[in-house]
Amino acid sequence: MVVPLTSRPTGCGELLQILRDGVPRSRADLVAITGHARSTIGTRIDALLPTGLVRAEAASSTGGRPPSVYAFDPSARLVLAVDLGAVHLSVAVLDLAGTVLAEIRVDNDIADGPEPVLDRVVGLGRALLDQVGRPAGDLVGVGIGVPGPVQKASGRPMNPPIMPRWDGVDIKGILGHELGVPVLVDNDVDLMAIGEHTAAYPDVSHLLFVKVATGIGAGIVANHALVRGTDGAAGDLGHVAVPEGRPELCHCGNTGCLEAVASGGALVRRLQADGEKVRTSADVVDLVRGGDQHATALLRHAGRDLGAVLAGCVNLLNPSIIVIGGVMAQAGEHLLAGIREVVYRRSLPLATERLRIVTASTAGRAGLLGAGRVVADHVLAPAAVDALTETHAPA
Amino acid sequence: MVVPLTSRPTGCGELLQILRDGVPRSRADLVAITGHARSTIGTRIDALLPTGLVRAEAASSTGGRPPSVYAFDPSARLVLAVDLGAVHLSVAVLDLAGTVLAEIRVDNDIADGPEPVLDRVVGLGRALLDQVGRPAGDLVGVGIGVPGPVQKASGRPMNPPIMPRWDGVDIKGILGHELGVPVLVDNDVDLMAIGEHTAAYPDVSHLLFVKVATGIGAGIVANHALVRGTDGAAGDLGHVAVPEGRPELCHCGNTGCLEAVASGGALVRRLQADGEKVRTSADVVDLVRGGDQHATALLRHAGRDLGAVLAGCVNLLNPSIIVIGGVMAQAGEHLLAGIREVVYRRSLPLATERLRIVTASTAGRAGLLGAGRVVADHVLAPAAVDALTETHAPA
Repeated sequence: MVVPLTSRPTGCGELLQILRDGVPRSRADLVAITGHARSTIGTRIDALLPTGLVRAEAASSTGGRPPSVYAFDPSARLVLAVDLGAVHLSVAVLDLAGTVLAEIRVDNDIADGPEPVLDRVVGLGRALLDQVGRPAGDLVGVGIGVPGPVQKASGRPMNPPIMPRWDGVDIKGILGHELGVPVLVDNDVDLMAIGEHTAAYPDVSHLLFVKVATGIGAGIVANHALVRGTDGAAGDLGHVAVPEGRPELCHCGNTGCLEAVASGGALVRRLQADGEKVRTSADVVDLVRGGDQHATALLRHAGRDLGAVLAGCVNLLNPSIIVIGGVMAQAGEHLLAGIREVVYRRSLPLATERLRIVTASTAGRAGLLGAGRVVADHVLAPAAVDALTETHAPA
Repeated sequence: MVVPLTSRPTGCGELLQILRDGVPRSRADLVAITGHARSTIGTRIDALLPTGLVRAEAASSTGGRPPSVYAFDPSARLVLAVDLGAVHLSVAVLDLAGTVLAEIRVDNDIADGPEPVLDRVVGLGRALLDQVGRPAGDLVGVGIGVPGPVQKASGRPMNPPIMPRWDGVDIKGILGHELGVPVLVDNDVDLMAIGEHTAAYPDVSHLLFVKVATGIGAGIVANHALVRGTDGAAGDLGHVAVPEGRPELCHCGNTGCLEAVASGGALVRRLQADGEKVRTSADVVDLVRGGDQHATALLRHAGRDLGAVLAGCVNLLNPSIIVIGGVMAQAGEHLLAGIREVVYRRSLPLATERLRIVTASTAGRAGLLGAGRVVADHVLAPAAVDALTETHAPA
């Protein structure tokens, strides 16, 4: 039978989407799901096998020759995930299902600028690939989150307030040149939202991830997809005015922004003004964990300010989960108690009936898991898989 | 050639999605777009033609026998669109491309309750179908917007504050029984957002539609899709607290809600307290249009309160368009001036660089156009079209 050339490229990617859930399926299963002819399925399976993304397994059988089933093999390719913070750098190697195979976290000052920091990323990435004992050719993409707004198409940071010297830097080009694979650059909180959604709440349609650290930002999942906004600027919760909030001056030039009164940075400034020896958000967390009443009272009040803004977000977006992440979330229940207090008082009953407000479940890995997910989605997109089967087609 | 039974149902709907843009295409065009074999395209076209949704046309040709092209025929089926307000009822007959064929608007008190109001809807609908001279069998669906939250799956209003006696009413079942077609029920502002997006900004990915009338509500379009939220409660802008707002008591039980200070209803109460003879939001609009300085000053202040809340929405969602609709939008530039003043001051520069704030372009028809669109999307969904080709298949 002569198969038209076009039938292979358009069909393999579609078939892989079905298999991506990890369930092994026979040719008959795939015929039933797609409605395609058995010969078409056979041709597409035969094109996918040489890529390594799909493997044949012997199905369990009660007798006779066991029929083959086909399953997605997420270990066939690797992703490098990077979470770049203001004062840390995390790098991990993941498979295409988001399993972390190797991971490292180092102190890193983002103000060192693009060249030394991206050199570090490349060095750590290569070391991790060595560590997992896989050839460089298995790497299919890099995902990196940065602490500032990113222009979606170019992947360049846009006037990032806490990333001096990074404005407009071609992160995609620099890392792509060094590592020889596609690079996806995103805002760090957006990747955390995707990571937490993928790892902990895959069936939730509407989720809000709020990072409370030196600054405050949010990642929005609506209709199961990340909302980046027109310019990639969505989720900028830090500069929303707090209803009934204190008119504190914010570094953005306005007064009364959430970040100016409820962030880790704001608490550090308040405690310093009161004579406490604190330098970072982590120091504030340590004070609260140590039972310091003044720090605890300030944190609880920060929670109420967060709640006043989040109540508006709940009315607007009606999520079923609000996940609180970032270093301040490690201060325990005091922050959440303040948030819950105001959200449940201020939001409409219908919107809070099924709402849960929780801390992040991914233990600081949300950004890495999100980066792994966006790269996997990119390289496993139907058109990308179709192109791959062309590359791997037997001559 | 024997075509497997399954190949027809799975393919016709997909083909119609391609044709839905209205561009006539030849079989060769469709082969090129889909990558399917010419015989497959032929089979699917042949299955679509008897439904009437696709018609064959003679393509312009420079000589010889003109080849046929195939085009979507939106006039093949009709939709009944209903916009149910607190004090009005609009009903229209549309084709599947959203063209209004007949339309009527009558005064209607929603407090009359479901039975008389839905009787009116059915009566007006049948009269409009008569008026366009089309058989009842051409009607494929009803879309209705109601002024309150709607449970998405059941289509029932849920504790709607301004719809006494409508809580939990089976609108879908009642209208479906009378008219014999599927009925989709939605929140009125959500449908207005879809209508305005479809009619005026089809290429915009992120849009916010704000209805300012007796109450205040919003419909959110993000990533080109309506955001209904977990419980269908998204877009409830009216009960977001206004930063730096007056602590006016709201009918929801909280204080300082946007609706309590900036809605048409709030302006009516303020003007009445000041001795003005106004009864409805439309009276306030008339006063402003007549040059009344006090009413104009109050309206402009309402615009600033709206702006204070919308600035937060802009930071959160980063839309490129905010559309102001509802009766208060007819008061001219004073409302928009107040809104713009605060939004451009309070939102981050990145998020407002390309932001436009405009009044609705659909002249009170946004809800009807949105209802027409959701029904068309429903009946033209691939699986629905596949099912239709089965019904119309030659024996």
